[in-house]
Order: sequence, then structure tokens, then C-alpha cells
Amino acid sequence: MIQPSQHLSAAQFAPLLHTFRRQSPLVHCMTNDVVQNFTANVLLALNASPAMVIDADEAAQFSGFADALLINVGTLTRERQRAMQAAVSAAREAGTPWTLDPVAVGALTLRSDFCQQLLSQQPAVIRGNASEILALAQQASGGRGVDTLHPAVAALDAARQLAKEWNTRVIVTGEVDYATDGQRTFAIRGGSPMLTRVVGTGCALSAVVAGFSALPGDGLLNIAAACQVMATAGEKAAGQATGPGSFATAFLDALWTLEGDHETH
Amino acid sequence: MIQPSQHLSAAQFAPLLHTFRRQSPLVHCMTNDVVQNFTANVLLALNASPAMVIDADEAAQFSGFADALLINVGTLTRERQRAMQAAVSAAREAGTPWTLDPVAVGALTLRSDFCQQLLSQQPAVIRGNASEILALAQQASGGRGVDTLHPAVAALDAARQLAKEWNTRVIVTGEVDYATDGQRTFAIRGGSPMLTRVVGTGCALSAVVAGFSALPGDGLLNIAAACQVMATAGEKAAGQATGPGSFATAFLDALWTLEGDHETH
Amino acid sequence: MIQPSQHLSAAQFAPLLHTFRRQSPLVHCMTNDVVQNFTANVLLALNASPAMVIDADEAAQFSGFADALLINVGTLTRERQRAMQAAVSAAREAGTPWTLDPVAVGALTLRSDFCQQLLSQQPAVIRGNASEILALAQQASGGRGVDTLHPAVAALDAARQLAKEWNTRVIVTGEVDYATDGQRTFAIRGGSPMLTRVVGTGCALSAVVAGFSALPGDGLLNIAAACQVMATAGEKAAGQATGPGSFATAFLDALWTLEGDHETH
Repeated sequence: MIQPSQHLSAAQFAPLLHTFRRQSPLVHCMTNDVVQNFTANVLLALNASPAMVIDADEAAQFSGFADALLINVGTLTRERQRAMQAAVSAAREAGTPWTLDPVAVGALTLRSDFCQQLLSQQPAVIRGNASEILALAQQASGGRGVDTLHPAVAALDAARQLAKEWNTRVIVTGEVDYATDGQRTFAIRGGSPMLTRVVGTGCALSAVVAGFSALPGDGLLNIAAACQVMATAGEKAAGQATGPGSFATAFLDALWTLEGDHETH
Repeated sequence: MIQPSQHLSAAQFAPLLHTFRRQSPLVHCMTNDVVQNFTANVLLALNASPAMVIDADEAAQFSGFADALLINVGTLTRERQRAMQAAVSAAREAGTPWTLDPVAVGALTLRSDFCQQLLSQQPAVIRGNASEILALAQQASGGRGVDTLHPAVAALDAARQLAKEWNTRVIVTGEVDYATDGQRTFAIRGGSPMLTRVVGTGCALSAVVAGFSALPGDGLLNIAAACQVMATAGEKAAGQATGPGSFATAFLDALWTLEGDHETH
Repeated sequence: MIQPSQHLSAAQFAPLLHTFRRQSPLVHCMTNDVVQNFTANVLLALNASPAMVIDADEAAQFSGFADALLINVGTLTRERQRAMQAAVSAAREAGTPWTLDPVAVGALTLRSDFCQQLLSQQPAVIRGNASEILALAQQASGGRGVDTLHPAVAALDAARQLAKEWNTRVIVTGEVDYATDGQRTFAIRGGSPMLTRVVGTGCALSAVVAGFSALPGDGLLNIAAACQVMATAGEKAAGQATGPGSFATAFLDALWTLEGDHETH
């Protein structure tokens, strides 16, 4: 029986952020061209270690050292697909958890086929918006790209089904984020509409989720904490911003200074 | 007979910005590696929807959904040239307007040949600096890269000739920007020298121009309004900045808050 | 006999910064995907002219116009390796000085082999962290990527050896930076730990070093001044920042406003 969504308490969230910063996971990001810089800066602001290695041979080598791997198909090409496949295979062999961000899946053929293939390769986490999760579960075609046409809750059943079918965890993000393993579900509130006016906040969340997936303990709780970190920083930044430029700056500062223990909901 | 340049009145500029934000055009940006992030953030700050899709097959698919396409040859490779060509062909078939930013044309062979080929493929708009427009009109070789060695007005005749010859619209940018269809010409003032100290402001303008080219109405007026939006935001940001870092932040905030109705000249 | 490290005096540093800004060197940056935007903005903030040209034929053409070339292997692929090799060959033929940033050399095979090959092609400068310089001198395998596991001083002997063996100049960066030609050594202090929390500060330093290597005069002093410019701006920015977001903004502003004559140590 499906349990109702739980919220993260401050007592759950703060120590995980502390552990993340102390462990400083090395996150191998194979992500899209548009967001590489911002993704790296978000990880650095949380004291993690980002690394972008993209040649197929080097990416496979690197997945052996890294604590986590992120695959984001935003600017997929056939060459990158080969490199990503090599990295995923090496990560699985090394026991490195890997996270899939299926950007704009459903709308475009190359990435849709690739993401469907990747489902059977044991991703630790899948993170997408509602349109992407629906498309991945093949319940709907995707939106018109990176936009989502559905609220996150509309894809919650699809997320649970996907999680159960592939024995993974799924995060659907939107005004409220949901993290589910098919049985338990966390609902994460906070954030800000301004997060949709800075490119790469969702992609960077996927990288942070990848990093949190390398922590010990309750895997679902860990990735829910990753969402809460980003939502809380977003909310804090929105209070200081006069537009998306100052918001992006304040967001990185908020990640850096976040205590976690008195900012959750 | 060529008419003298006209200025944009506030009454012309404000409602177009309003329409742009409300329509939120989906702009497919095939642009250079250096400026993708900033370009996306500029479009988002104006409430448009940027998307960067670069595989040849996916790019052709995507040009069918998008409201506008941008081709910027700043970091051209042979593979990207094939993908850009596929996207332009698909855009023409779908009736999607496409804009050409011929970065550093004239100075380098691959891009110069490609840009000359593209001229016959009905771009809705061409946006370049004086050196680039002169090179494209084959009246001079280009500058030493992205710099321009000429004021915009030096290329105004070349711009008019290019617009007439290829039945398109041409924007030459510099201290003053000019937008012409070969008959009518708008002169756009404002801006700030600080715009030349942040990478990608010209490239981002081309993306905004691409988005405005998808609006209904007077096509030349629409793209002149795009220039005025960027110039006005630049002027506003310069008043708040202590260097190029704070300028870039203030520029994105200014795009977000710009009213348009009391800031034109 | 090896001389002890010297410090840069204000009298040495200020006029070199002035010359750099006046000459505005055109720096051809073949660098990694993650840092292209920040690298360009750092150069622009110092009044230099960045250009990123990546196709093999165009890169070779461009190395003829440029004042300096930077090769950074952070996101190396086989295709980029070919383009970088073409650019280095053309730079050598044209007498354009070129700088090597051997990101993560030692840890990954493709880049390690390529960097070893490049050593014999007369780089004007090599700039790396301690792990990278040790790996390049084949005294140790590299760190786990872009991180360094050693303080800069631990690689100072390796740097001197490398400089003498290949008749070049080597910069090892860390809490203190060292610039050596194998005989003389400058030690550069200042900077901020916050520089490690913004992606690309080291890569951007390499681009600035490449630009300073094009100045006339004492080649070792020139590149030491480049390090001092970045360290001084970093120190200034840290005093104004509340996190890595505001630090990055303040850093670009500090580069823009730096006088050099009263800020050295």
C-alpha cells in the first residue's frame, strides 16, 4: 500500500547537509553545455568536488574514482551518448551510484531512446519535471522542451510506478518536489518561482542529488534532503533578490551559509 | 530612396516588450559554447523560453516546435555546421523565422564560407558588428575576431545593401545600433561601454532579436525594440555597477524589471 | 645554484598591469567547456580580448593573429586534441607564445599522454597545481581530478626541474603561488580560500598568464605579475563577499578597478 507523503523535519535535514559538506563527494558530471559552470559552482558552494570529464575513455576511467556520476542529456549528441554509456558501465562495475536527468525526454528522439535504454542500467536516482517523468513512464509525450506543462503532483503516480518497475528512486520537481522509491514518498516545499528564471537550477539539483546519493544511510531520505537544501537556499535567496541576476548570486551565497537547522518547514 | 534613420518612441517600444513577455517565445539557440549560459539567462529574464538542442536530428525536430531559431557561428565546428544546416532547413520548412549571428565572419575560412552559404537561405534577421556586416557584404575583411574595428555607422550602407540583396533585415551594433530592411532604418541609442566588458551581450542580443522576430506586426519595428530593450537595460545596469561583475548581475535584474514606458530616449 | 624565492614589489607589479591593459592582448583560449565564460569575463575585466576558436583549421588560422594561445585540457576529447595540436603548431610557426594548463594530468590517460607530448613543443609557460606539476614531472600520479592533494611548495623542486628540462617557465599555484624558470623563482602571496569555491579561477589565471606572456620585458616577472593581479583581486573580493556567488561578482569588479600600486604585499 502506498503511504502518504512525508515532510522532512529539520532534525532530519540538518545533519545530512553537515555530512555532505564534510564528505565533500567527488561528483562526475556529464551534463549539458549550458549549465556546466553553474552546476560546478553549486557543488563547490556546498563544499563538494565537481569534475567534468567527457572523453569516452577518460569518463570510464574517472567513474572509478568518483563518488557519484550524473548523466544529463540536455545537449546530447551521438558522441556524448557513447561517452555517457561508457561512464555508466564503468560506474556500475565500480559500484558508483549514478543519477539520470532526462532533460526534455519525450519530445526528441535521440534522447528519448537513450533514456529508455538507460532505465535498465540501474540508475540510483532519476530526477525530472512532471512532463519528463510522465514521458519516461510512457504515459504522455513530453513538453515543448525543458518547460513542464504539468504540476509535479500530476506525475507522482508515474514516478512511483517508475521507481517500482526499475527498482530506483524518482524525484519529480515543481512547485512542490516529490522523492519516492515507489513505497515511501517525501514532499519537499520551499523554493521560489525565481528558480525557474535562472538556467540550470534543475540540472544543478540533479548534480546535488547525485552527490547526496553517495552518502550512507537512508537513500531516499538523503536525496530528499538534497531537494530541501536547494529549496531552502532558493527561498532564502528570493528574499534578497531584485531579479534573476541578484537571485543567482544570492542562491550560491545561501548554499554556502545554509545551516539547515532552522530554515526547514 | 533611402529614408533617414528613425528613433524608437516609448509608445512603440513598451507594448512590444509587454507582448514579448506574455507570448514567452521558445527560442532554439544554436550558439557558441562561451555564451550559452548567459544567453539562456537573458531570455529567461525577459520571460522567454530558451532551449539549446545541438544534435543534427534533434535540432531539426526541435525547429518544428520552436517559435524562433538562432544560428551563432562563434565556436563553429564541421559537426555543428551540419547540425545548424539541418536546423535551418527544418525551420524554413516549418516557417520558423531564423536569425544569423555571423561572429568573426571574414577573419576565418570555415565560418565565412558557411555564412555566405546561409545568406541564400532566407534568414529573418542578420545581427553583427560593423566588421562582420562589412565582411558579409564582402566590402572588407573582418576584424581580428569578435572585436570590431569600425563604428556601426560605417557599415550602415553595407547593411542596407545586404538587406535588399537578400530580402532580409540587418542589425549593425555598436555605440549606436541600426536596424534596417534596406528601406527603413531605426537607430537605437542607449547602452553602455560596460556591455563590451561582459562576454556574450552581443550574442544574447541576437537571441533576443530572434525571439522578437517571432512576434506579429511590423517585423523591423519588432527587432528594433529588441535592441532598445537590451540598450535600456544596459544603461540602467551601468548606473548601478562598480565593474563588469556587478554590471552583469544588474543587467539581468534590469531586463526583469524593465517597464519600457519611461526609459526610452 | 638555485636562488631563493623573491617577492613582487609594488613598483614591479603596477606598471605591468598598466601595460597589459593598454596593450589589450588578444588571447586565443582553447579551454575546457566549464570555464569558457568565466575565463572570457576575467580577460575582459582586465581589458584584454578573449577569443575561443575551436575548429582545427580555424584554430590554426587564428593562432596567427592572436597575441597568445592557451591550451587547457580540462574537457579534452580526441577531436579537440587534434585542434589543439594544430593551433600549437601554427602558434610556434607564427612565434605566438602558448601556455599549457594540464588540468588533472596524471589521473587520466588521454590528457596525460597529450600533455607529455606537448612538453617538447616549447610552451612559454606551464601553469598547474602541485599534483599536476608533480605528475607532469612524473614524480607522482595526480590527485583525484582538479583537486590538489599537495601544497604548492611540495612541487617547487619538480617545477624548477621541469622548467630547466624543457626550457620553459612553470607556475605552481596553491595558498602561495610560485613562478620559476628553473633559476629564479617568485613567490606570490595574497589570494583567498574563496578562490577554490568558484569554478575556473585557476583556469582563468592560466588565460591571464597567457596574456601576460605576450608582454615585452622580463618574461618571468610578467607571469609572476599575472599571478599577483589575480591574488590581489581575490583578496580584495573576499573582503566584500558573503559567499562564493558574491565573491565571483566582486572578483570581476576588483580586476576592473585594481590599481596595483598600493595593494601588493
